[in-house]
Amino acid sequence: MSDPAADYRHIRAQTLALAAGLSEADCQVQSMPDASPVKWHLAHTTWFFETFVLERHAAGFRPFDAAFRVLFNSYYQGVGEQHPRPQRGLVTRPGLAEVLAYRRAVDEQMAALVEGAPPPAVAELVTLGLNHEQQHQELILTDLLHLLSCNPLAPVYRPRPAAAVQGEVAAGWHGFEGGLVETGHAGMGFAFDNETPRHRQWLQPFEIARACVSRAEWAAFAADGGYRDHRWWASAGWDWVRREAITAPLHERAQGHAFTLHGLLDLPAQAPATHISWFEADAFVRWWSAQHPRQPAARLPTEAEWEHAAGQAGSDAAAEGQFVEGGLLHPQATASLFGSVWQWTASPYTPYPGFRPWAGAVGEYNAKFMVNQMVLRGGSFATPRSHIRASYRNFFPTEARWQFTGLRLARDL
Amino acid sequence: MSDPAADYRHIRAQTLALAAGLSEADCQVQSMPDASPVKWHLAHTTWFFETFVLERHAAGFRPFDAAFRVLFNSYYQGVGEQHPRPQRGLVTRPGLAEVLAYRRAVDEQMAALVEGAPPPAVAELVTLGLNHEQQHQELILTDLLHLLSCNPLAPVYRPRPAAAVQGEVAAGWHGFEGGLVETGHAGMGFAFDNETPRHRQWLQPFEIARACVSRAEWAAFAADGGYRDHRWWASAGWDWVRREAITAPLHERAQGHAFTLHGLLDLPAQAPATHISWFEADAFVRWWSAQHPRQPAARLPTEAEWEHAAGQAGSDAAAEGQFVEGGLLHPQATASLFGSVWQWTASPYTPYPGFRPWAGAVGEYNAKFMVNQMVLRGGSFATPRSHIRASYRNFFPTEARWQFTGLRLARDL
Amino acid sequence: MSDPAADYRHIRAQTLALAAGLSEADCQVQSMPDASPVKWHLAHTTWFFETFVLERHAAGFRPFDAAFRVLFNSYYQGVGEQHPRPQRGLVTRPGLAEVLAYRRAVDEQMAALVEGAPPPAVAELVTLGLNHEQQHQELILTDLLHLLSCNPLAPVYRPRPAAAVQGEVAAGWHGFEGGLVETGHAGMGFAFDNETPRHRQWLQPFEIARACVSRAEWAAFAADGGYRDHRWWASAGWDWVRREAITAPLHERAQGHAFTLHGLLDLPAQAPATHISWFEADAFVRWWSAQHPRQPAARLPTEAEWEHAAGQAGSDAAAEGQFVEGGLLHPQATASLFGSVWQWTASPYTPYPGFRPWAGAVGEYNAKFMVNQMVLRGGSFATPRSHIRASYRNFFPTEARWQFTGLRLARDL
Amino acid sequence: MSDPAADYRHIRAQTLALAAGLSEADCQVQSMPDASPVKWHLAHTTWFFETFVLERHAAGFRPFDAAFRVLFNSYYQGVGEQHPRPQRGLVTRPGLAEVLAYRRAVDEQMAALVEGAPPPAVAELVTLGLNHEQQHQELILTDLLHLLSCNPLAPVYRPRPAAAVQGEVAAGWHGFEGGLVETGHAGMGFAFDNETPRHRQWLQPFEIARACVSRAEWAAFAADGGYRDHRWWASAGWDWVRREAITAPLHERAQGHAFTLHGLLDLPAQAPATHISWFEADAFVRWWSAQHPRQPAARLPTEAEWEHAAGQAGSDAAAEGQFVEGGLLHPQATASLFGSVWQWTASPYTPYPGFRPWAGAVGEYNAKFMVNQMVLRGGSFATPRSHIRASYRNFFPTEARWQFTGLRLARDL
Repeated sequence: MSDPAADYRHIRAQTLALAAGLSEADCQVQSMPDASPVKWHLAHTTWFFETFVLERHAAGFRPFDAAFRVLFNSYYQGVGEQHPRPQRGLVTRPGLAEVLAYRRAVDEQMAALVEGAPPPAVAELVTLGLNHEQQHQELILTDLLHLLSCNPLAPVYRPRPAAAVQGEVAAGWHGFEGGLVETGHAGMGFAFDNETPRHRQWLQPFEIARACVSRAEWAAFAADGGYRDHRWWASAGWDWVRREAITAPLHERAQGHAFTLHGLLDLPAQAPATHISWFEADAFVRWWSAQHPRQPAARLPTEAEWEHAAGQAGSDAAAEGQFVEGGLLHPQATASLFGSVWQWTASPYTPYPGFRPWAGAVGEYNAKFMVNQMVLRGGSFATPRSHIRASYRNFFPTEARWQFTGLRLARDL
Repeated sequence: MSDPAADYRHIRAQTLALAAGLSEADCQVQSMPDASPVKWHLAHTTWFFETFVLERHAAGFRPFDAAFRVLFNSYYQGVGEQHPRPQRGLVTRPGLAEVLAYRRAVDEQMAALVEGAPPPAVAELVTLGLNHEQQHQELILTDLLHLLSCNPLAPVYRPRPAAAVQGEVAAGWHGFEGGLVETGHAGMGFAFDNETPRHRQWLQPFEIARACVSRAEWAAFAADGGYRDHRWWASAGWDWVRREAITAPLHERAQGHAFTLHGLLDLPAQAPATHISWFEADAFVRWWSAQHPRQPAARLPTEAEWEHAAGQAGSDAAAEGQFVEGGLLHPQATASLFGSVWQWTASPYTPYPGFRPWAGAVGEYNAKFMVNQMVLRGGSFATPRSHIRASYRNFFPTEARWQFTGLRLARDL
Repeated sequence: MSDPAADYRHIRAQTLALAAGLSEADCQVQSMPDASPVKWHLAHTTWFFETFVLERHAAGFRPFDAAFRVLFNSYYQGVGEQHPRPQRGLVTRPGLAEVLAYRRAVDEQMAALVEGAPPPAVAELVTLGLNHEQQHQELILTDLLHLLSCNPLAPVYRPRPAAAVQGEVAAGWHGFEGGLVETGHAGMGFAFDNETPRHRQWLQPFEIARACVSRAEWAAFAADGGYRDHRWWASAGWDWVRREAITAPLHERAQGHAFTLHGLLDLPAQAPATHISWFEADAFVRWWSAQHPRQPAARLPTEAEWEHAAGQAGSDAAAEGQFVEGGLLHPQATASLFGSVWQWTASPYTPYPGFRPWAGAVGEYNAKFMVNQMVLRGGSFATPRSHIRASYRNFFPTEARWQFTGLRLARDL
Repeated sequence: MSDPAADYRHIRAQTLALAAGLSEADCQVQSMPDASPVKWHLAHTTWFFETFVLERHAAGFRPFDAAFRVLFNSYYQGVGEQHPRPQRGLVTRPGLAEVLAYRRAVDEQMAALVEGAPPPAVAELVTLGLNHEQQHQELILTDLLHLLSCNPLAPVYRPRPAAAVQGEVAAGWHGFEGGLVETGHAGMGFAFDNETPRHRQWLQPFEIARACVSRAEWAAFAADGGYRDHRWWASAGWDWVRREAITAPLHERAQGHAFTLHGLLDLPAQAPATHISWFEADAFVRWWSAQHPRQPAARLPTEAEWEHAAGQAGSDAAAEGQFVEGGLLHPQATASLFGSVWQWTASPYTPYPGFRPWAGAVGEYNAKFMVNQMVLRGGSFATPRSHIRASYRNFFPTEARWQFTGLRLARDL
């Protein structure tokens, strides 16, 4: 990011653009403990800059409102107490207008700080804050979709762009020889601490599918009784699918329609399946293999395989993917490894060999979540294009379905 | 109610007055499954008139929005589906403005219907709808207090009136001879079906306290370890108080302060204790009796005793109590048996001998709740004065605390 | 009971007779928190005599094992700690043999105490202990039936007596004029504190059915969709029946069979329905009334009505009922108001006017359970005949189904 | 295992030896859903041979009791229904004697089959069945300890051997250079499918501690407030430790004593800490590192590091460890990497590259559990010595504490 001040203005404005047109009620409600209100996202991303940048680096700093320190802290124990996550939606005051004033007040002070040439320590925190804000931009969309999905009237967030034409879809597989490869972030650009250090590992030869698993393939799985056949499921997944009475991806509705940010839609058959949990992805690959007995068994790629494949695709690979800038708010099939839907991998989210969290409170950013979650790769239609890279590690628990999650097959060669 | 049209305008306007000054966010959020959003109360009371009056009696009726029939039905199975109660707060659309437009549209049609001399069947339903609306007026205040109490910033709903001076407080007991008395609604005025039929029962001689149990008395109970001493508690109450780690009435805060609709206040010692469950009231009377070993044991009055006492007090008795018209939104001690706080009785909520629910869907109003609830009598500071009477039966489960509930002692003579 | 020593020997032996033939495993397991292991019942009834009689009245008393004081205390807070109820089944040591030795040791000391003419205070406690033991005799059978019902092999507790022939069944109604009647225990015999004091109350004219509701009638209710029709159910009952997916009484199996202490049986159509909750009984009477539109509406009798009817039937009425001495361990239709199945009433379990619990720890026997339970009357096939009387009040929560519970219709005249 | 018949007799007899002296009640009870009754373990291990060996390979096979097929199936969906795991303790019939007869009947038929030279397919299944039985031998001890720990009388399973003298304890670290190493099972001996295929991976240089973390070290962690300091805990661990109010390892009692299979003991300070969850192990290493700021940060070893270290130690390494044959039923410090306590690793339990589950129903043995569990290595004092090897992978969820679990530190070089 060449111009911190311009980046700051641009990314902060993008967040507001996502909230444009929403009512105060839309921005207020928390539809489940895992989700947060849009108003909270607007405030928390601002709190991040106030707490980690202004409070430490702005001369004569005074908090906008001392109570916000607790109210909008997500989970940084090192910064003090947090308001309980499941109760975020109960705080109706400050209202939306006051939170927007909070954004403006912090933005003014930040503008003074990032204009010109901020010292490296500040510049680094600003970059972190902007990457953090981009993560919440995607969460605004996932959480809002979940909220609107609870409304029996199926309201529309944004009308569907007229030009949403599905392009050609890739088929077949990319092959890789493996061997002793390096994965993890390299180079000078920004990366989260969890992408480091770059390290060696041994990969056996593998293939990875050119396209994500499509709605049509998923419909075949469901139609074949996939959700009711224990053979495809991990034991914990089988318990989950029966306990929760799961029979389709989240947000699927009657007659093949899906509820999306554009409302209830009849999506193309070749569009990537989404809103599936890791348990469902894991079951699907076993079912798929049984349907293709003459082919090598399919599986989820490991995150190292995915990253190796993405790295081989060249530095512009991400540019071809479907990201939030396109304005189409449901996934579309593309030839890119990146974008459209986050892709579940076979890899539990663990620290890389030699991993050290960042120093200080921001060290809580990633490190403390490295257990009982699975890695996802590639970004989605709701991810800002500048936010993604080959080494980027997203992670969610095995039953999470409200994110824009899908899968891509892999197999041994 | 002599003039149905005037009554209608007046009571409907009172509901709006309660919501005045609230933000859309304040009106949107449901802070627990037992509570409902203010917006929902505004809509549901309107739905009641649309469904039970306009739909049946207005020529050329067309629903304002067909979806509202399900969305704002509380529990009338006979009218069709209901949107699940715990999810009322998730419906951000229709927004507050649209719900207010719904009120106006229904009010216009209702005005045409109640003007002049509506037929008795209509007049009865309008009277029922207005009494129903008054019940929701109190619920708006209880539910809003609960919501605001979840906000760590302790926001104020209304500033406290300047003239909130505590008057003289009654002491001692009223005595009654009992015998074969009649209870239940008598006369021509409106009553709910659960207040009928008037019937005979035998009362032994009893006394009932002139004042409700005060904050000072409650503080003595708590200070004496009342919440930690099994001797005072029913078995189910003891399980509850330990499981929920209850140590004080709901909305009590540090240093003797209480959170109220006027914000955090240091209330007078003689003010009635409130936000107590039946379990707490039941424990208190046992503790109180042990503190006064030379007096007859105290107990909660039965609802028949309470009603007999209130009936003896004359038809204007209710006028002396503290009701919502006074504008003071926390309970005050008065000499009246009515008002200030709803008084838990010793009586489970059961049908009177010979009880028949109203015919049709409105028969679901009271009849189906007559199990596992206890009767409360007298009204509270949040009750409209015209709404209460000696035979009025309110009811809640034994652990409910978010209502304006207190108690008055009784004892055998 | 004329001879305390003989009564003691007889009733204690009856308890052992119930456990005869059970394995140590059968006596060990607790199949749900509401039930207790047979071994615990054997020990707890012994603990009762040791704690309330021997410890206070036996010269040179030494406890059999000091640890048993906590281990086998059911809920007497005044006597000290209790082992948590849901964990009773986890205590494998002391084993069954040691518990039987405990019984013998206590019985020996009790024999010395009750022989001759014990002082009244002792005699009263012994009588209480024996009535307490008889209650646990019935609980041994209810809890054991529940345990065996969890075994997919449907094991038999006792073979069905060969002579189990169903007698003639009563039809029609008994009528009563009501008026100012007295209920509650009268006379010199033993009664629990909750049956006192005898007091006046006003009854309106009523009828009560000669027979309990039969399996055939219940089957008609279920076949008519009774479990799926909200019209018949109280609101809390409707929530319960759907949440628990209830479609039949407990222990009903396929093809009209029922699981009983004699194993899986095809019971007679006229046998009383049993293992129904109060919610189900309450729903049934509403359904029944709708099936008989030309008759007065049926309802559950109040406990006062039941007791008045039973009192009118004369002092030998109970003798005609089906009790545990008959050896048939499923309910049979009889002409008696007593026996066969406990009959749910319309009455919540509350203290009688002027009620005072017994002094001391035995005051916890009944008093602290007087909330959120409903009264049952009449005894069941599992009740010892000498244990029941017209004023006897049994009580359980509205969802309890593992007891031998049924219902008898009543209606206004 | 050179002589299948002798192995069969020996291992089956060891299982019975573990149950010797237990009462039927001890063998019946299931103290929590994760544990199973001893009687069930005795039956299920027998069911394994009957179902997977006799039914397929014994001429004229007839089941001992057809009902046992469902009753004692643990989780093999491919073999049909299973009795629900949490209800295993409710099945009192068949009793212990009948289950022992079942064992004898199956053993007789198995003897005929394994005598002489069974065909390889049979021999393989017998070996699998014996390894399976050895796993349940350890579970008998973990589950029984949990059951006895629920008894407030703290009963003793076996008296402590007189000769339980703690030997010298190792100190310091073993260092390894890493590089491209192979892990996974090699050679001809038995291994579970999850130990295969042997595969390459890259290890960075590391050290692994010579001793497991001791009770003294754990006590220092707890005394330093380790259980109350968020800095040491993963986010999910911090939620867990507070929700469950964890303050010490499971089975720790007052004054430094621990409840063991030898009863309540004051264990040596240098004995390995045990009954800790992965969350606790993970927190400990962070705390330990902060206490040793001049040393490289400690962490849990990966399973590959552990296996590489164990492989370097030579083929007899396991022989020096503390295993069940020693008769001491609490962990002791030794110089071996093996035995005493299972050691949590940093590795989630995932399939090895190229992993293929066994064909048929036994393919459910391991494969379907490869999610949300962590790998443990090394065996414990309750493991049969012949059962363990360097490539052995045990696995449990991150909150499991009733197993004999501890930890060993590792660090980067």
